[in-house]
Amino acid sequence: MLTISRYQEEFLEYLKAHSFKKEPERLYAPVQYILHLGGKRLRPVLTLLTTDIFGGDYRKALGAAMAVEVFHNFTLLHDDIMDDAPLRRGMPSVHEKWDVNTGILSGDVMLVLSYTFFESYDAELQAKLIRLFNKTAREVCEGQQYDMDFETRNDVTLPEYLKMIAYKTAVLVGSAMKMGAFIAGAGDEEAAAIYDFGLNLGIAFQLQDDYLDSFGDAETFGKKIGGDIIENKKTFLYLKALENLNGGEAGLLRDLYNTTPADTEKKIETVKALFVSSGAAGLIREEITRYTEKAFAGIESLSVDPEKKQLLLEFGKKLIDREV
Amino acid sequence: MLTISRYQEEFLEYLKAHSFKKEPERLYAPVQYILHLGGKRLRPVLTLLTTDIFGGDYRKALGAAMAVEVFHNFTLLHDDIMDDAPLRRGMPSVHEKWDVNTGILSGDVMLVLSYTFFESYDAELQAKLIRLFNKTAREVCEGQQYDMDFETRNDVTLPEYLKMIAYKTAVLVGSAMKMGAFIAGAGDEEAAAIYDFGLNLGIAFQLQDDYLDSFGDAETFGKKIGGDIIENKKTFLYLKALENLNGGEAGLLRDLYNTTPADTEKKIETVKALFVSSGAAGLIREEITRYTEKAFAGIESLSVDPEKKQLLLEFGKKLIDREV
Repeated sequence: MLTISRYQEEFLEYLKAHSFKKEPERLYAPVQYILHLGGKRLRPVLTLLTTDIFGGDYRKALGAAMAVEVFHNFTLLHDDIMDDAPLRRGMPSVHEKWDVNTGILSGDVMLVLSYTFFESYDAELQAKLIRLFNKTAREVCEGQQYDMDFETRNDVTLPEYLKMIAYKTAVLVGSAMKMGAFIAGAGDEEAAAIYDFGLNLGIAFQLQDDYLDSFGDAETFGKKIGGDIIENKKTFLYLKALENLNGGEAGLLRDLYNTTPADTEKKIETVKALFVSSGAAGLIREEITRYTEKAFAGIESLSVDPEKKQLLLEFGKKLIDREV
Repeated sequence: MLTISRYQEEFLEYLKAHSFKKEPERLYAPVQYILHLGGKRLRPVLTLLTTDIFGGDYRKALGAAMAVEVFHNFTLLHDDIMDDAPLRRGMPSVHEKWDVNTGILSGDVMLVLSYTFFESYDAELQAKLIRLFNKTAREVCEGQQYDMDFETRNDVTLPEYLKMIAYKTAVLVGSAMKMGAFIAGAGDEEAAAIYDFGLNLGIAFQLQDDYLDSFGDAETFGKKIGGDIIENKKTFLYLKALENLNGGEAGLLRDLYNTTPADTEKKIETVKALFVSSGAAGLIREEITRYTEKAFAGIESLSVDPEKKQLLLEFGKKLIDREV
């Protein structure tokens, strides 16, 4: 087993060795660009780590880790077009730096490229990996569609919201780990358990993201606080607050989410106060704990080295505490 | 062996049996829509036909045929966004009927779906099919990029143009047939020969398309004549004419392609006259014959039933004569 930062280094080295500077330049330059904007490379690290946890050699997992990272960046590229986001990791997004058509086509070729990284596996393993990858990729698309649908819907329920974040974010975390298990030759039960671990941790991570967006420290969170409120995003906090508030206050919250006032700071403060008074802010903390504990409970029965299991738990805790 | 129209019917039946009417509705409805806009289904038919030609059972090829057709329609969907084309087969294009974001995401899920249709094959065959599909899909993206690059370049050469149409159109035809050969268990040499047949036929087909766009009969061609000229597309006809015309006439042609005059009919007539006087119109006919003969010569040595080979030749001729 390596440390997390060593896995990150190993992955970055592998990424650098696979240059995407190919012809035609305008197709591949954005691929190279977005893949080198940085980031913690959490998903590929989880693939490598999981292979080692199940007694495999993480080097065998580098191809699948690349598939996961290239796919993840493909989704970021196309999502940025759909959200008209000007920045990605503090740098111009692809469609800003080039144009929308370039962004669409470079994203398309990234999705294809992600599949090519399974070619190095023997046929049986490859078929298992690709079947999982297909299912996951479809769910990620479905999650993005639900997210876009929710923008214009006023009847979104909490279970629907949880399904959306699971599909949009958490299934790829579970999948990244399950691929690592497949590569190590783990059994179906173990692979399923590690998938659930990643899935539940992914949901906890996304709920934490929602919480920090309103109640985090701008310095450590790395984004402006209140972004979701300004964009009227129907997050867990909003949906839970609506559920718990009395008619008048619920109406106020709904009205605030149907307007875009000039004084955004005041809107943020009012909404945050409603998130607290409704109990939603406390309940999301409970929910984060619940999903984290669910993740941890699921791997208790795993027959792997207790030290390795401990490493997994610590990684999970750090992930939720945003220390990794 | 079946007749071409029987293969078309068999494919359509299989297509109908695989409904894409799934949740979320806004993600999958455009998939169902574009896949049922019609068309001759030439690529999937070629996959089925090729499996039979090499002694396999076309029913085993239905999955790969679907992958090819879903992929082809994904490229149409995203290309229509990039070209801002309002119509597809006489009906509103997906981004017109819905919107651009829907078009991007539904296209993405179609690309993923195309891979899922290989899941039914045993692992060894699946790996062969997917490796070929990956390469082809990358080349199709590269072809589309070259096509977009050419719009703003004034130094496009004929070899570059031929490479572009090969990538954008012909490799998928070759690939559709090679997959059929793989499924029938044909050897590598036979699979390579049938790929080249499809590739050369695909190039001939695209050159024929360029020719008919200027010199065809609007009635049978199904599109307005002169579309490429109005869009200043640097086709074979344009590039060859530039190569052959004297300085003054070449300058006139270049000028016409740098303007968008109000009287488009006059521009079309002038350009067509230059295509003829330069010899380009005659030379493209020769080139079409050359690629068709190259395609036919390449399969002469194939060790398949002469009757089946004859059917392949007839299909090729019909394709170029636009009777199928």
